[in-house]
Amino acid sequence: MTGPVPDDERLARVALNALREPADPRLARLVATMGARELRERLLDDVDLAGLRSDSAERLAGLDPKRMLDDARARGIRFVVPGDGEWPAGLDDLARVQPLHGLAGPPIGLWLRGPARLDAVTANAVAIVGSRSATTYGTAVARDLAAEVGAAGVTTVSGAAFGIDQAAHRGALGVRAPTVAVLACGVDRAYPSAHRELLEHIAQIGLVVSEVPPGWMPTKVRFLSRNRLIAAMSTGTVVVEAAVRSGALNTATWAELLQRVLMGVPGAVTSAPSQGVHQLLRSGAASLVTCGGHVLESVSPVGFHVQNELREPPRATDSLDLTGRRVLDAVPLVRPAPLASIARTGGVSVATAERTLRDLEQRGLVAGAGGRWRLSPRPASA
Amino acid sequence: MTGPVPDDERLARVALNALREPADPRLARLVATMGARELRERLLDDVDLAGLRSDSAERLAGLDPKRMLDDARARGIRFVVPGDGEWPAGLDDLARVQPLHGLAGPPIGLWLRGPARLDAVTANAVAIVGSRSATTYGTAVARDLAAEVGAAGVTTVSGAAFGIDQAAHRGALGVRAPTVAVLACGVDRAYPSAHRELLEHIAQIGLVVSEVPPGWMPTKVRFLSRNRLIAAMSTGTVVVEAAVRSGALNTATWAELLQRVLMGVPGAVTSAPSQGVHQLLRSGAASLVTCGGHVLESVSPVGFHVQNELREPPRATDSLDLTGRRVLDAVPLVRPAPLASIARTGGVSVATAERTLRDLEQRGLVAGAGGRWRLSPRPASA
Repeated sequence: MTGPVPDDERLARVALNALREPADPRLARLVATMGARELRERLLDDVDLAGLRSDSAERLAGLDPKRMLDDARARGIRFVVPGDGEWPAGLDDLARVQPLHGLAGPPIGLWLRGPARLDAVTANAVAIVGSRSATTYGTAVARDLAAEVGAAGVTTVSGAAFGIDQAAHRGALGVRAPTVAVLACGVDRAYPSAHRELLEHIAQIGLVVSEVPPGWMPTKVRFLSRNRLIAAMSTGTVVVEAAVRSGALNTATWAELLQRVLMGVPGAVTSAPSQGVHQLLRSGAASLVTCGGHVLESVSPVGFHVQNELREPPRATDSLDLTGRRVLDAVPLVRPAPLASIARTGGVSVATAERTLRDLEQRGLVAGAGGRWRLSPRPASA
Repeated sequence: MTGPVPDDERLARVALNALREPADPRLARLVATMGARELRERLLDDVDLAGLRSDSAERLAGLDPKRMLDDARARGIRFVVPGDGEWPAGLDDLARVQPLHGLAGPPIGLWLRGPARLDAVTANAVAIVGSRSATTYGTAVARDLAAEVGAAGVTTVSGAAFGIDQAAHRGALGVRAPTVAVLACGVDRAYPSAHRELLEHIAQIGLVVSEVPPGWMPTKVRFLSRNRLIAAMSTGTVVVEAAVRSGALNTATWAELLQRVLMGVPGAVTSAPSQGVHQLLRSGAASLVTCGGHVLESVSPVGFHVQNELREPPRATDSLDLTGRRVLDAVPLVRPAPLASIARTGGVSVATAERTLRDLEQRGLVAGAGGRWRLSPRPASA
């Protein structure tokens, strides 16, 4: 599609989007086949398409898309649709995946609140999701991960829920990195209400996104369809903590279906909120990450952000060969020993022992005097 | 080799074994090539083979294998060699792996203390190893793993060190399962000395094993060569906690070289003693295990000990289709709502809503009266 999206196309999508629960596979298929305007007209003409008209009669009755759009605009809320510049290409991947729990398809449109451009802010984005009933450990890890990827310019996408989600958003906000909250209710609602200020903050500098129209309540089905958007808008999804039956695992499944990078943060095996993550890791669905560097490495183009595994600083004994280490092992710590005794203990000839001790002395590891040897006092800094 | 091992073969191996530090690749190669008796005779004849004679002159001088064997026997210690009935076949796999840190080869013989038969007790054995500086979490997990595999008849092999090792031995002892301690010092020594009672306990019902002769001290090199025995005597190795530079990772590398099953127990990413394990898991060298069932599944023949992943009990709503869940979502918890309102909220026709509500009512999920519906009170047990 070139040029701006026509008004009647946008209005048709506002109406169709409000007609059904999100991710109705029939609706997505009909929109893809005949276009939103044609579909809306035929439904208004009382044509029953795949059972859509009769099922939706109750809701269709009271629908005024023009007023919905105007009301939303007056409150700083916009409705973006395919063809708009800020429509993220990643959402269209949803057209190519099989339904999950009966849900499928790209959104017909998205309601947005906030200054960020959706395409720009999700161009390099990671979903950080997890349990509402998270532990102190989990929320600290989520916050740190979001801050670490945020410092590298990567957006954190999450669901603004209690626990892991809110910690991820706050971690991003803490380093002034963009963050996107995708809701199961209208973008004008605060759910949970305890997160009203958090959502306002996100709406001021990032984006609050929802597929359902302003004013709508969150429902269980809407959480499930919302999860597919979190996965689709992100290059990768990190599950921080998730009990065996957790909504975060639903997001993880969407990430898998969408062939996004799926990552999991391990935790104590005795911690229930880590059990779901450990299952993902054991099944091979997710790769194990322990820090922002690992996440960046996984979601970045090959060669970027390569994270060196943690290593302790090298020690003076690292470069010793086996003979060197054996002789060193044979040198007493306190009372100096004669060469022959060190050779015997180390299992080497006297000549080898002497040559090796000279080398160890040059490395500062042993000290010799009067034909007897002991270990060098350890430097204070070692 | 058939029939009992000849005395002079055993004595030759006692001497050769005491001549060098364990896992000397030259010695292992020469023993494999010309046999222990031949090699010993040629060295006694002052033949310098691959530098072996001159290097070992100091130690060879004072060696009396007959007396070593007699002294050991008097203290309940035996020396087993290839050809003995209780020599475990797994040790010979060491002949086929490349040197690690200059160490290679199967042991020339093993000193044993305890009533168990080495071949029988290691026929179904798992090594459980980890950091000396383990956390309370790590030691609890090691203990539980050893108890769980022990209850299934699987021996725990470990190194009797502080931290993970001792917890693993104690876990096995706690369920009266066999356990094998492989030491870097003589089997008559208690290292660390705080584990004297633990080692006595193991020697009474399991086995204390060492490659170095009775009386020998533990050294760093002996710990490294000891680690290869732990890996070789076990079907699989579980690393419970291991900092980035940990001896347990050396055992893990031996397990990899020997193509044994390598497993790792995850922990908090903020816990230093879990970092080495997480590296093993990230690299794909180890598979993630969280319980004894997972370990048994990994080390057992296909189809045995299959551990079902943890699941919460099914819920009444699990079998609902999408329409069922949408309608259920639309039913209020407290104040009953009329059918039309539920249909509108759920996005279904009145007819579909009514049919679905009847079904939900039969499942005990909703209650209807006078054309209005509400959720059923939740059973007290749910």
